[in-house]
This record gives sequence, structure tokens and C-alpha cells, in this order.
Amino acid sequence: MENTEASNEFTGNLLVAQSGGPTVVINSSVAGVIQEAGKHPEIEEIYGGLNGIYGILNEDLIDINDEKAKTIGALKHTPAAALGTCRYKIDFANNPEQASKDMDRLFQVLEAHNIRFFFYAGGNDSQDTSNKIHEEAVKRGYELRVIGVPKTIDNDLPHTDHCPGYGSVVKYNATTVMEVGEDVGSMATDDGSCCIVEVMGRAAGWIAAGTVVAKRSEDDAPHIILLPEIRLNEEAFLAKIKETIDRLGYCIVVAGEGVKNAAGEEIGADKSKIDSFGHAVLSGAAESLKELIQGKLNLKTRTVKLGYAQRAAAHHASATDIDEALACGVAAVKAALEGKSGFMVKLVRLAKEP
Amino acid sequence: MENTEASNEFTGNLLVAQSGGPTVVINSSVAGVIQEAGKHPEIEEIYGGLNGIYGILNEDLIDINDEKAKTIGALKHTPAAALGTCRYKIDFANNPEQASKDMDRLFQVLEAHNIRFFFYAGGNDSQDTSNKIHEEAVKRGYELRVIGVPKTIDNDLPHTDHCPGYGSVVKYNATTVMEVGEDVGSMATDDGSCCIVEVMGRAAGWIAAGTVVAKRSEDDAPHIILLPEIRLNEEAFLAKIKETIDRLGYCIVVAGEGVKNAAGEEIGADKSKIDSFGHAVLSGAAESLKELIQGKLNLKTRTVKLGYAQRAAAHHASATDIDEALACGVAAVKAALEGKSGFMVKLVRLAKEP
Repeated sequence: MENTEASNEFTGNLLVAQSGGPTVVINSSVAGVIQEAGKHPEIEEIYGGLNGIYGILNEDLIDINDEKAKTIGALKHTPAAALGTCRYKIDFANNPEQASKDMDRLFQVLEAHNIRFFFYAGGNDSQDTSNKIHEEAVKRGYELRVIGVPKTIDNDLPHTDHCPGYGSVVKYNATTVMEVGEDVGSMATDDGSCCIVEVMGRAAGWIAAGTVVAKRSEDDAPHIILLPEIRLNEEAFLAKIKETIDRLGYCIVVAGEGVKNAAGEEIGADKSKIDSFGHAVLSGAAESLKELIQGKLNLKTRTVKLGYAQRAAAHHASATDIDEALACGVAAVKAALEGKSGFMVKLVRLAKEP
Repeated sequence: MENTEASNEFTGNLLVAQSGGPTVVINSSVAGVIQEAGKHPEIEEIYGGLNGIYGILNEDLIDINDEKAKTIGALKHTPAAALGTCRYKIDFANNPEQASKDMDRLFQVLEAHNIRFFFYAGGNDSQDTSNKIHEEAVKRGYELRVIGVPKTIDNDLPHTDHCPGYGSVVKYNATTVMEVGEDVGSMATDDGSCCIVEVMGRAAGWIAAGTVVAKRSEDDAPHIILLPEIRLNEEAFLAKIKETIDRLGYCIVVAGEGVKNAAGEEIGADKSKIDSFGHAVLSGAAESLKELIQGKLNLKTRTVKLGYAQRAAAHHASATDIDEALACGVAAVKAALEGKSGFMVKLVRLAKEP
């Protein structure tokens, strides 16, 4: 009798995958999914999809049931995407024919492996993909529970208060700004010196803005923060540098990589410089600002471009961030087991104090 | 009787100062000097010279006797130069008149404060300055014991096996290369991707070479290391990138900032780019290599330029490096008390295993 009842229950295999740019805590979310899934007998096999949707379309799945216990601990503290990521999009808007073929192939793979639980950790595009797969499953009458797990260092996902990955980047970047501030300040001469730290965030300034936590007092670095959302006022910018140099002997600027000039163009893309193939050279926002400062103020200026280092810095990850990312993975599994599909896990702020 | 004997002993005040680019452990050396000096009654007052020789010439001295106990702990773990540094040189070769005036002024300040022990933490130029001050003291018959304390992230000081500051930079940079390798590797697509990490060391490749410790196996990052001492062979470089991409899907290059082309010119200085003032733009070695790779291999390439962040990264300093820097400060005081002057403390390797 119990056997018959059990067979009526919703059971099946689980597939978890990662997408988009890695973060230092995206593996923690996967660890959360695996950890929680292991507790529920309704979930039979646990598969990892290699390189996101791109790999799943190629049936690149690995069985991670066996590795459960020993991988979780390590995964929580491993940077980058352990399963690999992709930027592949099932693009109905621009390429409906290919998208349609992709969906057929995807459900072929899901059916072949009896996948009934699908978790996709990623940013805006990945959440969109998750939702499309959910809708397609409903349309096809294929029982599947799809839950998105939020991930992006940019902190630009709607609905969630903040996004796993962001806290660690801010911790690392703010520490770096604090340390660079001490360094440049200790070399301050009468002539003054300036240092520009370029950080990620092409369209969203959350990462640049977050480095303000480096300030313990008014005169601490960063002295100027440039956000992609606010067009650069060159005159005000140079005046603020001059005023800071006059007062402190040095000036630390944090620039989001997508900072724009008065005309709304990214200043990191200098079209006056052409490479051997005739393409505009992207020299980066910090380098462009350095040229501006050295040219107009004749001020010794150096740059730091953290690039991928900031989103890979596991050695300085935020413990809270790791825990929250893991909790998102756990919550995704719980939501799916409650019968939910087509949702994204979100973090809700309950208090302003930690 | 004892009083008379004591008055015949060599006693006086101590001055410690820092010079050149800061490191993450240069304050540890100062802590070592202060800690050891506090144990010896022959050393009366302990002064810090602000901004090296430059500040001492301006009589910018601070009394650090009182702060001894509470500062040492913090100093050991504070990046940059707590006393401030300078790049001022007493330059007999090129400006003998000014150098002569500087020496007169310097000994005026030393005499005014009865400085009999002088410790200067710095690189090659600073050790040269220490030696000149020692020789000048001998010439003037002014009893002074001058000991140089080695400091430079570049690891290019002669006589010492390795240099305090270097180990921490390598620890930080190798960790970063390892993390960036994980990140780029996890995004590897069929098209492949490349990342160039530019590190310090304009003339010496020790820092770039040191990142090899990031490798645990043959295929780990870094896949290519470019040293300033070896001119870039473009063809071999591009072929090695292509071969690495074909095998692994990604390639991590570490480039010392001073890497040179076949003609012996620094590739970071691209003279084809002229700023609004008609000066050659220094876009950095990594950016130049990126242009080369993107142009010739049409390969997605990103850059990381650690800049000052690498020599200021106290959050990831090497404990051994901190201890050795402190030991150099302690050894400097002991040597001075033994009557030595005109020497630099050095680290001697006793075993190849830690």
C-alpha cells in the first residue's frame, strides 16, 4: 500500500547549473542545493549541468550524488563556477527558429534523465531563461519545477534586497581602496598624487558606490566615486581632485568601469585610438581618467584595474555572503518541493542593523 | 664610580625613517626597531623621521617613545609607510652643491636632537643614502651608527637572500592568479578567452616569476610569464597562447610591467598614442598585450592591473614576511649597539626547505 502511495508522489531527478559571469559565492549556492536535496528522498539523482544551458543542450551532465558530502565543504569556499558557466541565451526575440529547436532539445535531455527539479543560478538573463523553461514545461505538460537562484556581483537583480556575490566584491574592493589609500597617502609629497581604482559594474554603480564603506572618517579614501549612472562633469571632477590634493596631498578615485562622459559615451572606449584592425581600443575608464587628470592638472596619477580579481577573490570573501548564497540554494530546493515553479529565490531585509 | 663609567658609554637618541615605495611589511621593520630599542637604556629617546630624508631635512621628527607599547602590535599589520616616505636623494653625482647643503642641514638636525643611532628602511637608493650619511659622519667626526634596513617588493637588493616585502606581494599575486585562473577557466567556451595580469617590477622580474607558485599542476595558471629581463618574442608568445587555448580553452598570462619588445622598448609605453598635450600615453603592458592578442588572434582578452593594490594588501600579507621584516628591525638595533655602522641587515638562507 505504501508503495502505491509513494509512486503517486512527485519524484524525479535534479539538475543544477550556473550561468553568466562567476562570483566568489556561486558555488556556495550549488552547495546549498546539493546539501538540501540530499535530505529529501523525493529527489533521486543529483546532476550538474556543465557550462549552463549551453552544456545541457549537449547533454554534458555529471552525476554529483556520490560526491555530495566531500564536495560541499570545499565548494562553499571555491571561487568561480565549479560547473562552468555560459552566456548562451535561448533567444525567442531575435532567433525564434533556433530558440524553438533549443527548447525541443532541452526537453529531450530533461526527459531522457527524468529531470523534475531544475535550478539555475545566474543573473537577469539566467532568470529569464529559467522562466522560459518553466513556461515551456507548462505548455508541454511536462512536470518540472524550475527555481532561479540569484547571483550577480553587480547587485542589479530586481525583487531581491541584495544579491549573493555583491557583498564579497564590496568587502574586497573596499579593503583594497582602504589599503591603496594608506599607500598613496604615505607617499604624499608637496606635488601630490592621485590613484584611480577601476571596479566592475558597466551599467550599475552598486560596486563602485559600495567602496564608500572604506571611509572611517571624512578624509579617508575613496575621495571621489564615479558611477555609470551619473555622467561625468569634468570641471567639477577636476576641481574636487585639486581641492582634495590641496588639503590631503593625495586623492583616491573609484570609477565604475561604465562611467560616461557628458555626451553619455563610455569614457573607457576611446574612439580616437584605433588598433591595427581599425577597431576602437578599449583602454578602460581608469586609463582615460588618468590621461584627463595628467593632462589638465599635471598630477602624478596611477591606476589599479581589479578586473576579474575582484569577483574571484575567495581569499577575502564575505562569510555572510557565503552563508546567504548557500541559503538561497537551500530555499530553492524547499520551494520546489513545496510545488513552486517559475520563481526566483529572494533575500528580504528584516532589519537595518546586522 | 658607576656614574662615571656610565657617562663613558655610548648613549644617545635614535631616529628611524622610511623611504621609497611602501610595502605591506615596512612598518613591521619600524616596529622591530622600536621594540628592540626599548630594551636598551643606552638608547634614550626614539624619534621617527616623517617622509624620510625629505622630512628630516625639515626637522619633521616625532617622539615615539611614549607610543611604544601600543603602536607595535598595530604597526606590524599596517600597510604602507606609517612614518611616510619620500623619493628624495642626496645627489652628490648630479647636484653636488645641493647635496653638500643637504648634508650640512642633516647633521645640524641630528646634532640638535643628539641622534646617535639612525635606521633607514628602504631599497637601493635608501641604502646608498644610509652609506653616504655613515661616511659623512666619519668625515665630520660625529659619532653616529647608521644601519640600513632592507625593504623592496621588487626583491632586487644585493647581498640579502630575499627582501622583506617580496614574500607578501608574491603571496597576494599568486593567490590572485590562481583565483582569476579558476574564474576564466570556468567561463571557457569554444572560442576561448585570455586574461593578462600585469604585476609590478619595472626592471626586475622576481614578482612576475614568483606567481609560478600558483601552479599546482602543469595546466594551472599562470600559463605564460613575461619578465622585463627577456625581450618578448611575439611569434612564440602568440603561438603559446594559441596552443594553450586549443588545449584548455583559456590562457592566463602574467606580465611584469616593464616587459620589453624585440627592440628593447617597454611595450607599456605606446608611442603611437598621443594625448591632448602631445605626450606618449602609457597604457600599461597588459593593455598593449591585449591589443596584440585581440588583433592577431581575434581572441577575447581581459586585463587585470593590480598596481598599488599588490604592495598594500595587508589583508593577505605573509606571516613569515612580517616576522622577517620585524627581525630586520631588531637586528639593525643590535648591530648598532655592537658598534657597527654603514652596514645593511641581510637575510641569509640556511636551508632550502622551510
